[in-house]
Amino acid sequence: MTNIEPLREFVSGFTRLFETHLDAASIQKAGAELLKTLVSHDDWLPETYTRPHPERYSQYLLHCDPLERFSVVSFVWGPGQKTPLHDHRVWGLIGMLRGKESETQFTRRDDGSFEKGGTDFLEPGEVAFLAPGVNDYHLVANALPDQTSISIHVYGANIGGVSRAVYDETSGTEKTFISGYSSEDVPNLWDRSRSKAA
Amino acid sequence: MTNIEPLREFVSGFTRLFETHLDAASIQKAGAELLKTLVSHDDWLPETYTRPHPERYSQYLLHCDPLERFSVVSFVWGPGQKTPLHDHRVWGLIGMLRGKESETQFTRRDDGSFEKGGTDFLEPGEVAFLAPGVNDYHLVANALPDQTSISIHVYGANIGGVSRAVYDETSGTEKTFISGYSSEDVPNLWDRSRSKAA
Ligand SMILES: [Fe+3]
Ligand SMILES: [Fe+3]
Ligand SMILES: [Mg+2]
Repeated sequence: MTNIEPLREFVSGFTRLFETHLDAASIQKAGAELLKTLVSHDDWLPETYTRPHPERYSQYLLHCDPLERFSVVSFVWGPGQKTPLHDHRVWGLIGMLRGKESETQFTRRDDGSFEKGGTDFLEPGEVAFLAPGVNDYHLVANALPDQTSISIHVYGANIGGVSRAVYDETSGTEKTFISGYSSEDVPNLWDRSRSKAA
Repeated sequence: MTNIEPLREFVSGFTRLFETHLDAASIQKAGAELLKTLVSHDDWLPETYTRPHPERYSQYLLHCDPLERFSVVSFVWGPGQKTPLHDHRVWGLIGMLRGKESETQFTRRDDGSFEKGGTDFLEPGEVAFLAPGVNDYHLVANALPDQTSISIHVYGANIGGVSRAVYDETSGTEKTFISGYSSEDVPNLWDRSRSKAA
């Protein structure tokens, strides 16, 4: 069995960042340090939230701030799985936990069409940033042909409820969507009876 | 399928009470109104969190505030199930959702022994209060011999992590315990893609 404590510490710490009344960019930056610590070990994610779906990538909610100021999601990529080109409209962090992910960035021209940028590969322990108006358009894929990859995403809102868009790479045609989540449950972070002596 | 929205509204509303910097008694009182609304309809609790265990009552965590200022727990009582005499050491609210619960209160004498007080019966929609130093000792039981009863408890801390005690009713002998929770998951309150149009 995994020990959920690192995720609990991450969620508590991230919540406390909002108590300091920092601006969004400072929260994202300080949060990236917390995420780096979280993904520096791959021993805490419960098995339920690591399971690939045979047909599409999974987005398991791990925690949503009750005031919906941020959310934490486990992205599980089976072999060959990838997103379409999409945006977020809120800040984001990607922390690589297991396997390898490729992220291809795009910029949008004034006529609405897209220009393909570079492709980065994320390795376990690495953290990448997203910000609206800076680098909000990308396409993410499992970079491993024969293994599951898992990354932990953090967003500056309840991403499962944000109305945003996927795009056709060549025409730039946009389609609005709300991503939702792959599971009706989230992990219980709060059972301290398992680690505390009574 | 149930609609989780009433529980989401309850959790958001309760969290916002802490933003007002009210004292604990005022939070408990305002929270009791929110709980009354929550248990006024029995159509929102996912089936997973309504299942009785054959041998003992279940305590399913529904939500824990990430700063551990409050927690929300579904107590599921099979026929004949009851707690021992116990305390809480933080404020509590009990909202009856389904079936019928009996609550027997106790007061503690200076010599540590207990005096049995009255027994109240809670019916669906009703809310009871607990407070340390006022009425912190009780014994709760399913009041129905042949049906499951369910009540929603709210506490002024992460109750699954509070070190507190059970007591022998006659000798007053105390035994420390941490109650923990019956499930490794909690319900996902945050999938707004199910109710919002994209
Ligand atoms: Fe993305
Ligand atoms: Fe109790
Ligand atoms: Mg790289």
